[in-house]
Amino acid sequence: MKTTTPSHTTRLGLDWSRAQAFLARERTAYERRNPRSAELAAQARCHLLFGVPLHWMTDWGTPFALHVDHAQGAQVTDVDGHVLTDFCLGDTGAMFGHAPAPVAAALQLQATRGYTTMLATADATKVGAALAERFGLPMWQFAMSATDANRYIVRWIRAATGRKKLLVFNGCYHGTIEDVYVDLVEGLPTQRDSLLGQVHNLLEHTVVVEFNDLGALESALAAGDVACVLAEPVMTNIGMVLPQPGYWEAAQVLIRRHGALLVADETHTISTGPGGYTHAHGLKPDALVLGKPVGGGVPCAVYGMSAELAERAVKAKLEAPPGHSGIGTTLTGSMLAMAAMRAALTEVMTPAAYAHMLPLAERLADGLRAVIARHRLPWCVTQVGARVEFQFTPTPPRNGSEASAILDGELEHLIHLGLLNRGVMITPFHNMMLVCPQTTAVDVDRLLGALDEVLTEIAARA
Amino acid sequence: MKTTTPSHTTRLGLDWSRAQAFLARERTAYERRNPRSAELAAQARCHLLFGVPLHWMTDWGTPFALHVDHAQGAQVTDVDGHVLTDFCLGDTGAMFGHAPAPVAAALQLQATRGYTTMLATADATKVGAALAERFGLPMWQFAMSATDANRYIVRWIRAATGRKKLLVFNGCYHGTIEDVYVDLVEGLPTQRDSLLGQVHNLLEHTVVVEFNDLGALESALAAGDVACVLAEPVMTNIGMVLPQPGYWEAAQVLIRRHGALLVADETHTISTGPGGYTHAHGLKPDALVLGKPVGGGVPCAVYGMSAELAERAVKAKLEAPPGHSGIGTTLTGSMLAMAAMRAALTEVMTPAAYAHMLPLAERLADGLRAVIARHRLPWCVTQVGARVEFQFTPTPPRNGSEASAILDGELEHLIHLGLLNRGVMITPFHNMMLVCPQTTAVDVDRLLGALDEVLTEIAARA
Repeated sequence: MKTTTPSHTTRLGLDWSRAQAFLARERTAYERRNPRSAELAAQARCHLLFGVPLHWMTDWGTPFALHVDHAQGAQVTDVDGHVLTDFCLGDTGAMFGHAPAPVAAALQLQATRGYTTMLATADATKVGAALAERFGLPMWQFAMSATDANRYIVRWIRAATGRKKLLVFNGCYHGTIEDVYVDLVEGLPTQRDSLLGQVHNLLEHTVVVEFNDLGALESALAAGDVACVLAEPVMTNIGMVLPQPGYWEAAQVLIRRHGALLVADETHTISTGPGGYTHAHGLKPDALVLGKPVGGGVPCAVYGMSAELAERAVKAKLEAPPGHSGIGTTLTGSMLAMAAMRAALTEVMTPAAYAHMLPLAERLADGLRAVIARHRLPWCVTQVGARVEFQFTPTPPRNGSEASAILDGELEHLIHLGLLNRGVMITPFHNMMLVCPQTTAVDVDRLLGALDEVLTEIAARA
Repeated sequence: MKTTTPSHTTRLGLDWSRAQAFLARERTAYERRNPRSAELAAQARCHLLFGVPLHWMTDWGTPFALHVDHAQGAQVTDVDGHVLTDFCLGDTGAMFGHAPAPVAAALQLQATRGYTTMLATADATKVGAALAERFGLPMWQFAMSATDANRYIVRWIRAATGRKKLLVFNGCYHGTIEDVYVDLVEGLPTQRDSLLGQVHNLLEHTVVVEFNDLGALESALAAGDVACVLAEPVMTNIGMVLPQPGYWEAAQVLIRRHGALLVADETHTISTGPGGYTHAHGLKPDALVLGKPVGGGVPCAVYGMSAELAERAVKAKLEAPPGHSGIGTTLTGSMLAMAAMRAALTEVMTPAAYAHMLPLAERLADGLRAVIARHRLPWCVTQVGARVEFQFTPTPPRNGSEASAILDGELEHLIHLGLLNRGVMITPFHNMMLVCPQTTAVDVDRLLGALDEVLTEIAARA
């Protein structure tokens, strides 16, 4: 990620002097436009570390934290009364729209009927059946977040297989499961240096290879000690990296040949369609994780297993000494979460919703390409279903190293702030946008128009 | 934990032959009494691992999983229409009653106003201020569960102090933070053997000593490499273990003297009073964790820091290379969680609520002592505020080893099932009961009456 000011004045097709002047104006505009947020942000600094509920919320890069009043469908209304068109959608948690009506109804009903008893409700059975039907894996368990689901499925698989190693792709992201924070730096596995207070040697049990490199994958699997490959079918969090044609088909064969299992983290790639990327493309993972959107934005996550893996997992538990497995937290799979998931799975994440989202995302992607072309920028657009991203490179990256090299935090913040001041919100990390069931063509045009305005301000003049 | 059938017929003051016969009758009674739960449990086995949302839900020890219809105040209504008096209260998540009215109202309002945007709301500031006032620590962050809060505060402290070691007490429980699963087995630190798929060597960075042993604590701290002591002020999860008079005052002096910090996990001991055990007893932890009940049963957790620790934590983050800290998940500190916490902290967890709960818990503890005395059992009762437990020993355990030795899973299940069939629910683990603001004296008498009945069936005859 580039963060230093370049010596040249042209950067990624932009006039960097104009860009800097634009940024200064936009910061002033943001400050003028958001007095109530400024006031709340000042108060928040008294009792919240970094002035925000979670320290990474400062990554929005705004002069001070924007404060939200409410969010509905594809719109966020901030505390100063601006109605923002939201393509961030909680970075996927609200990808089916903010407060979707069936989830809202379920919450309103459940509000007086209890949240947590450490016991199942009838919803649990319905949710299990809905998940099995949708994803084609028969057996399910619940977690509080995709982080937890990833932590637990990897633990179950290590216990079931007796193998210790986890294989991940360079630049991957699977929440805060610690085992995955190993990068390739100049080809060598390296513990991520930004981690705070991580004392275990993550290199000991984690193997990392580049995505889209079958040779590297095969070499890493050859020792026969890899329990599982944990992967997003499309890398989404270092900028988007699509699998090359045939990659997953061949990768699956290699993984099976060497006795490893495949865990698909579909938390972001559920943007592909109702059954995720794996179902749309005929992949057969042994386990699948789905976090954020599965409760329509209510905290919960799920993980599923093949019949064979489930049998091995049960056996591992029954053969272990009694006592804490280290898997599960008390409020997980609660009545509240189950009610939200039942509503989201049966009434929100429907084929009809995707039938609206997918063509509109195409329109967004096409529109972005047109704006980029108009400004003659060496940028490209990548897409996985309802998830669209523009990237600062003429050809899409093929792996984490390439994707990482083209990130430009300074430029991203500048564009995001310009969009925000024009009433459009995209994800604070890289340039990601989601289309939800309530997003309209007018919303898409609003984003495209705002981006065009921003780029007009900062593009290099011909 | 004893799980084998004893050869003798008297066990812990009970007639074990009568107890076994009683258990068989109660299992049959449970099966007859819960046909709808049986049906749902059978369906659940098709798609849920072990037939439950979380594998440990099988720890209830019932012939099949009880299924809940709804829960309100101190009552749980199961799917067969039985209204159960609930002293389990979600094992603390619902310790201020199921679906408390202010939280229900907040959920109903927030249901249509959005759940997650990765941005703060005005509630965040209010919640931060309420936490600072209540617990006397100025700076706060949010997490999804006490597990996460414990994981993150330990990471912040390791980063802030540059020390790696974590000190815990033998038999402790802090959710599924992995670093704490080290036991003393015959005096030697041992990785807990029931953990599934745990591949890291937890002994490397975790130090474990017995609770209530100042000499052991001082020896363990003497090397000057302990970052922090993570502790419940009262051990609650291996059976309750109270600190001996003066223990914490002296322990705090030792911890400070050796440059370590104290993290108080008050998730369970918030039963003591509005500011937890630490506030009630004048302890001064450097950090404090509160999970489950802080959102009235809606998933969320908080952790607070002293001004000095906060300053060191911020410095550590700012000095680290940019990138993922490994702390925080997307839906944490969401609008929904904030709304629930604001309602719970300002309108539910009030001094008035405790003024009802604490005397009623005394009544429960006294009543339990009377029942135990009537049956001449060598058992005792321990209590920390609204949290009460009867234990299978004449004198309360002083540390984790003693507490562990008196657990008797078989006997616990038998008693719990007997109570359940008589309309009273206590926690599935050991013999823990909570009194909530809606619990009545009649509820307490119902529990005492049911326990008396059960013990009459199984006590050794004079």
